[in-house]
Amino acid sequence: MTNNIQQNYEQRLAFLRDSIESGELFRVQRMLNSLHPGEIAHLVESSPVEQRKILWELIEQENEGEVLIELGDEVRASLIEDMDVSELKEAVESLDTDDMADFLQSLPGKVIHETLASMNHQDRERVQEVLGYDEDTAGGLMDTRTVTVRPDVTVDVVLRYLRQLKELPTPLDNIYVVNKHDVFLGTLPITTLLTSQPNDLIQDIMDTTPFTVPAAMNSQEVAMIFEDRNLVSCPVIDEKSHQLLGCITIDDVVDVIRDEAEHSVMSMAGLNEEDDLFSPVPVAAKKRAIWLGTNLLTAFLAAWVIGQFETTINSAIALAALMGVIPSMGGIAGSQTLTIMIRGLALGQVTSTNTRSLFTKELLIGFLNGLVWAIVVFVISALAFHEPSIGIVVAIAMLLNLIAAPVAGVLLPLLLKKLKIDPALAGSVLLTTITDVVGYAAVLGLAALTLPYWQRILG
Amino acid sequence: MTNNIQQNYEQRLAFLRDSIESGELFRVQRMLNSLHPGEIAHLVESSPVEQRKILWELIEQENEGEVLIELGDEVRASLIEDMDVSELKEAVESLDTDDMADFLQSLPGKVIHETLASMNHQDRERVQEVLGYDEDTAGGLMDTRTVTVRPDVTVDVVLRYLRQLKELPTPLDNIYVVNKHDVFLGTLPITTLLTSQPNDLIQDIMDTTPFTVPAAMNSQEVAMIFEDRNLVSCPVIDEKSHQLLGCITIDDVVDVIRDEAEHSVMSMAGLNEEDDLFSPVPVAAKKRAIWLGTNLLTAFLAAWVIGQFETTINSAIALAALMGVIPSMGGIAGSQTLTIMIRGLALGQVTSTNTRSLFTKELLIGFLNGLVWAIVVFVISALAFHEPSIGIVVAIAMLLNLIAAPVAGVLLPLLLKKLKIDPALAGSVLLTTITDVVGYAAVLGLAALTLPYWQRILG
Repeated sequence: MTNNIQQNYEQRLAFLRDSIESGELFRVQRMLNSLHPGEIAHLVESSPVEQRKILWELIEQENEGEVLIELGDEVRASLIEDMDVSELKEAVESLDTDDMADFLQSLPGKVIHETLASMNHQDRERVQEVLGYDEDTAGGLMDTRTVTVRPDVTVDVVLRYLRQLKELPTPLDNIYVVNKHDVFLGTLPITTLLTSQPNDLIQDIMDTTPFTVPAAMNSQEVAMIFEDRNLVSCPVIDEKSHQLLGCITIDDVVDVIRDEAEHSVMSMAGLNEEDDLFSPVPVAAKKRAIWLGTNLLTAFLAAWVIGQFETTINSAIALAALMGVIPSMGGIAGSQTLTIMIRGLALGQVTSTNTRSLFTKELLIGFLNGLVWAIVVFVISALAFHEPSIGIVVAIAMLLNLIAAPVAGVLLPLLLKKLKIDPALAGSVLLTTITDVVGYAAVLGLAALTLPYWQRILG
Repeated sequence: MTNNIQQNYEQRLAFLRDSIESGELFRVQRMLNSLHPGEIAHLVESSPVEQRKILWELIEQENEGEVLIELGDEVRASLIEDMDVSELKEAVESLDTDDMADFLQSLPGKVIHETLASMNHQDRERVQEVLGYDEDTAGGLMDTRTVTVRPDVTVDVVLRYLRQLKELPTPLDNIYVVNKHDVFLGTLPITTLLTSQPNDLIQDIMDTTPFTVPAAMNSQEVAMIFEDRNLVSCPVIDEKSHQLLGCITIDDVVDVIRDEAEHSVMSMAGLNEEDDLFSPVPVAAKKRAIWLGTNLLTAFLAAWVIGQFETTINSAIALAALMGVIPSMGGIAGSQTLTIMIRGLALGQVTSTNTRSLFTKELLIGFLNGLVWAIVVFVISALAFHEPSIGIVVAIAMLLNLIAAPVAGVLLPLLLKKLKIDPALAGSVLLTTITDVVGYAAVLGLAALTLPYWQRILG
């Protein structure tokens, strides 16, 4: 099977498609059984709907829960629809408590209740604890199964205790030290445990000031801390009682990082990171329609601005042809600034302490690029279109719009963030509106006011 | 110090700015000393240039290497410029071998040579081994410091051996089992080591079919495997000799994931993920100018298309006002498809096996949305602009462009990938060109050919 594992996704997908098309489902089944649930989920997400259904039938029941938890929301929901309560219960029971809680939240209420009722007392308590926290907080990310020891025992005792536990949670890079009331006292790194002498007392070798996070901490902040500190796991502590609630491990944090990054990319095109690559056409068309509708509204706003200059346009056809250049350039310049701002906000690099510096920097860049492109657009208008007077109008409008664009690109996401609107989602379409309206108004307004003057001078 | 650590980035940055402004540099120094190098790097990247220089002076020498390695390329290069050879050598020496290799590659040749010469034999060999691999491969990501044991020893012997090593690499979730020729035999998970009996032989408890990666594997593929299999570390094997070369750990993979995700966001706006948030205005302006220049070229192409329809425009001012709507809508629809394709390609979800399904799906979505928005644009043109005949022209052009846009959105990134051009980088501007040209040509061509006919019918 090693061979299958070493294959890349492209080869695997081709193998699956060919095997399904030729009806050799046993080959598909053998391949699926050799893969990790995350890899199966990856293949499921990459398969068109009909092929996906066949794959799903061939996945072993014991893997179904793990595969479901690795899928995007939309794909997961479409598969859950066809499962009955007993199948769902079995799928849930194979999961870690943090994954269990996430998964339960995506199920219908009736199934949640039945599944909880069928669990043993300890598991139910653990899941309900995680369910009590928002999905997007440290509490929602944590696994409540931790290995804990007391401070007054020796390394030898801990090693013997671990040997008695049949199974240890993975990844395991820290054991936690608590008192009898579960109050967190410190962390015992596995590497310290392994390099200490058998008679050493835990309280003498443990790290008493380790990094901990409160259960209410936002998951994006948790992810940033993991990245900056290269953590593999981190204890979650109750802020009031200082009790150990659980621990967050890197595998869950990687998902947060990936989701957050995709959110930026997808939101800027009015899409959602949980969308299915192969979602049904009516569903996908409807989702995209909202964005197109918003854009239509803004495009008409621009058309209305143009309409206000009827006589100006009538008098100069070259202007009608050239004016589209201005909003187009503003759109690009604005979206560059916007992208930087959105990335900076997501990474926590843009804060109220440095916005003034950023604003100045972006304004200067806008001014410099405005000058350069104003000259270029003038030269082209004069030489290629033989319209130097219109060239001057277009050039000044270019400068104005390339200054307005970065200003909007900096201020808009900050304003949206203050209004609790996601800048990645709403920023792009609002920005285009601003650059379109300012652009058209500048070029046509300048033409209406100054074109006769330039024509008189330049002939 | 716990208090400082629990503060979020915003508060830390405000504290830094205020302390620097009031000249209380000792407070800045105390804070920096309490932070992890990754967190210091985060603060450095978020600080405007003048403040950044002060911060850099206050960072302890022993931390400089770790901070530099966590910085983006542009920021790192600007700080390295002001360091002399001996400072650089000291910074390099504090790093892991994989980080060392990365860092050395960003230094001038003279410094690389001097630094390598000043290392002890073992370190130099390790670094040179990593330097032999491309930065973007498993070999370039790996750390050559691994803990290895022989298969014929007992758990007790391994535990005693580990105790003798003063320091263990972290994160440590696997020990590797090799023969005397360094040929890889298997993996001993730390959790297995801890739960086995002292007399157990390693060869009886080790995992003999663990997941391994060849040194030449692309780092993005490595990242996908880590994500899908929830790995914390993975051995890197020489494909021919089957010798253990080193191991890749999750902290380096998180950086790959983050970089890859940012590359998508930034490239779509013609930016680079390694760019400094506060890069000097002339540098930033020049970088952005390339993108704006490309756009200007394409915008003029659109203007030229408009210019071909001089008489048409002259005869209908409403058309001039309304025509901008068509390329604008095509741009949005196309960029939605493009975003999905770029994300799918980056995640390995889009491959040659499923492009036909995707193409059909996107085409249908385009047709559906085309119909909807064609009707809307017709109604608005007829009611708000009192131009039903122009409404029909604009509506048909809308339908055509909203079909052309997703077709281009699917085919363009695939074509670019085949030509070895990054779709995220070049896709957006090329797509806009296509939707602009098709849009303007459709609306004006239809007007030239059919407007008189519609005017005769509709009056």
